[in-house]
Amino acid sequence: MDYTKSFSQVTGVMKSSLIRELVASTKNIPGLISFAGGFPSPKTFPTQLLGDIFREVVENEGADVLQYGASEGDTLLKKQLQNWEGYELSPDEMVITVGATNALYYYGRTLVNPGDVILCEAPSFLGSLVAFDALQADVQSVPIDCGGIVLSEFESRVKQLRAQGKKIKFLYVIPDFHNPGGISYSLERRRDLLTFCIANEIPIVEDNPYSRLRFSGEPLPTLYRLDSTEFHSGTVTEVVSFSKILGPGMRIAYAKGNADLINKMVSWQQKVNITPDCVAQRVVARFLERGLMDPHIASICDFYRPYLRKMLDVLESRMPQNVVWTKPEGGIFLWLTLPESINADELFVQASQNKVSFIPGSKFYPTGQECFNTLRLNFTFSTLEQIETGIQRLAELLK
Amino acid sequence: MDYTKSFSQVTGVMKSSLIRELVASTKNIPGLISFAGGFPSPKTFPTQLLGDIFREVVENEGADVLQYGASEGDTLLKKQLQNWEGYELSPDEMVITVGATNALYYYGRTLVNPGDVILCEAPSFLGSLVAFDALQADVQSVPIDCGGIVLSEFESRVKQLRAQGKKIKFLYVIPDFHNPGGISYSLERRRDLLTFCIANEIPIVEDNPYSRLRFSGEPLPTLYRLDSTEFHSGTVTEVVSFSKILGPGMRIAYAKGNADLINKMVSWQQKVNITPDCVAQRVVARFLERGLMDPHIASICDFYRPYLRKMLDVLESRMPQNVVWTKPEGGIFLWLTLPESINADELFVQASQNKVSFIPGSKFYPTGQECFNTLRLNFTFSTLEQIETGIQRLAELLK
Repeated sequence: MDYTKSFSQVTGVMKSSLIRELVASTKNIPGLISFAGGFPSPKTFPTQLLGDIFREVVENEGADVLQYGASEGDTLLKKQLQNWEGYELSPDEMVITVGATNALYYYGRTLVNPGDVILCEAPSFLGSLVAFDALQADVQSVPIDCGGIVLSEFESRVKQLRAQGKKIKFLYVIPDFHNPGGISYSLERRRDLLTFCIANEIPIVEDNPYSRLRFSGEPLPTLYRLDSTEFHSGTVTEVVSFSKILGPGMRIAYAKGNADLINKMVSWQQKVNITPDCVAQRVVARFLERGLMDPHIASICDFYRPYLRKMLDVLESRMPQNVVWTKPEGGIFLWLTLPESINADELFVQASQNKVSFIPGSKFYPTGQECFNTLRLNFTFSTLEQIETGIQRLAELLK
Repeated sequence: MDYTKSFSQVTGVMKSSLIRELVASTKNIPGLISFAGGFPSPKTFPTQLLGDIFREVVENEGADVLQYGASEGDTLLKKQLQNWEGYELSPDEMVITVGATNALYYYGRTLVNPGDVILCEAPSFLGSLVAFDALQADVQSVPIDCGGIVLSEFESRVKQLRAQGKKIKFLYVIPDFHNPGGISYSLERRRDLLTFCIANEIPIVEDNPYSRLRFSGEPLPTLYRLDSTEFHSGTVTEVVSFSKILGPGMRIAYAKGNADLINKMVSWQQKVNITPDCVAQRVVARFLERGLMDPHIASICDFYRPYLRKMLDVLESRMPQNVVWTKPEGGIFLWLTLPESINADELFVQASQNKVSFIPGSKFYPTGQECFNTLRLNFTFSTLEQIETGIQRLAELLK
């Protein structure tokens, strides 16, 4: 039987992850130093602690955690998450999901009809753009600067789209340690963005995998927290992931937001997955209950801090003057801007031949809205020596 | 912000699981004996074995299993599944998913445009009908008898739909220990159904959560195996779940089928979940590798056999003559047919008052295609005493 003729319309046209293909294309180059991936370092995984808790949970609570669980997520985990966050939050304002992408998929399915507009940042996280692709949405990007989304551009885009009769369903943002942009929103930008979105009834979904990976400086409130404490509008849904904290293989994230919206996301979960892994959920609950989470996060920050420092130092000492980069206080990525004459897609091919790899910036924009003189560097998956050598190789190429 | 105005079209009209609401409605009745759920007995969960393997996997393979995994599923698990099944199967003909519902969702998304026809059995598994609902499909049911789907009715329905210009995207069937029907397809019906579907190019998705839970009699080949060994057409995709074998909380299932089709299901997984839980996948792989699966399944069958026996015996000795039921050789459900004058939805209310519960048959048909004089009984979640008392209560009501 030939299935290719019977694929649904969206399946027929959808793209696979370009990053995956790029990373695969350099897989067999011996000695390649890669700053391409977005993987946390396996050295940060608390394998001993988690191994013990997994065994205890399955042995002692097996009748519960090996059974079907609630589609909204484990009650015990929700309670621990509320304690951890210190929020006044009703359980029906929270859903546990199979990672953050899964939460964004449910959020999108809940709100978006084919053709509706989703607004995002330029650049934005490719994995989310790929998930939004499946909604047959019209994804439009608005530039960011070092303080967040450029509000004047955002406001004029909203006006323009509405004048065209387009339905804007939501804005997708990554305000803390932006992937791939490496920036964080200023407090003023957070307030101004919220004010505008509330006044114009534009829901915001805030992707937050990194905010707790802060190596220096003072944390700012997430958009969700700002709204909860100052505006009380229910405009923001925040998605928090444990992928960069405990390990992405466990597939645990959660979304907080308006109860009507969360209720529908739970209905989607019932249809798509029934429930996330109940064992992994309970393990995260017990990890939190024992007070292990905050010390563990502090140890990850201690571990990553010298890698970021190293990459910033080598960039500073080696890169030509006409290359600029972000200087984040956490997260796992840096963003380089090259002279406009340099195309990072072409640089990628040359760099691979010179045994160093990155993701060209063009991969982080909706199709047709690409910017070509940028690139993303990850600093959490290489050794300090590899960072030194790899950045030198890249700098040589750019000279 | 009021989100109810901005829900997507499908979200606005989609139904939640009626079974869930029914079960919730009887939750606080003291002394209620429930044959309603579809839960495996927690006494069958191998908590000690699994607890040890979870710890070993996380401690020894944490760098791998706590990291991001492949969207097609764990390579090691796929290899173990092939050994276990004894198939000649290429890895690109298999995808691991977050339970069987998740596999059916990806399968549906890959093939179905809104308005396309999905054919299913009458009755069929409500959870799958709810998942298909999300595809905005035209779900049409065809009656089953004690040997499987009624072929004459299936053939005439196919002709009729095609004459109307409708697109039939696939047939969804549960040939072994049918939920809720409690029947299994005869070998002849399997062959005839396959022959017709191949000739008429109708893909089949075969839901197989129960075939290994056989307490007596000889197993028949699944449709997938029949096609693989006799017809070689690639018509069938089989979905196998570990929910009734290891525990549904682990959320591990897999689908086998045509490589083009599986490839697109993997693309959907990348957008929806990225990957299933990598820890749970590896645990299942190690459980299989150590040869623990088959003895464990044998012990589950030994455990359930007396419960089925008991329910059949009590039905035989207590039920009025005008009530008939299926006599399965495995699985977890029986299906009762009442005299046509009795409406099982009404009986459900009376039965709850008499402290016994079941699922009315009407819940297992697409909307508008209900049959009201049937009901489903589960025999794996009650004690032998509860089965005796509960069936007596039901029989009294029916007299």
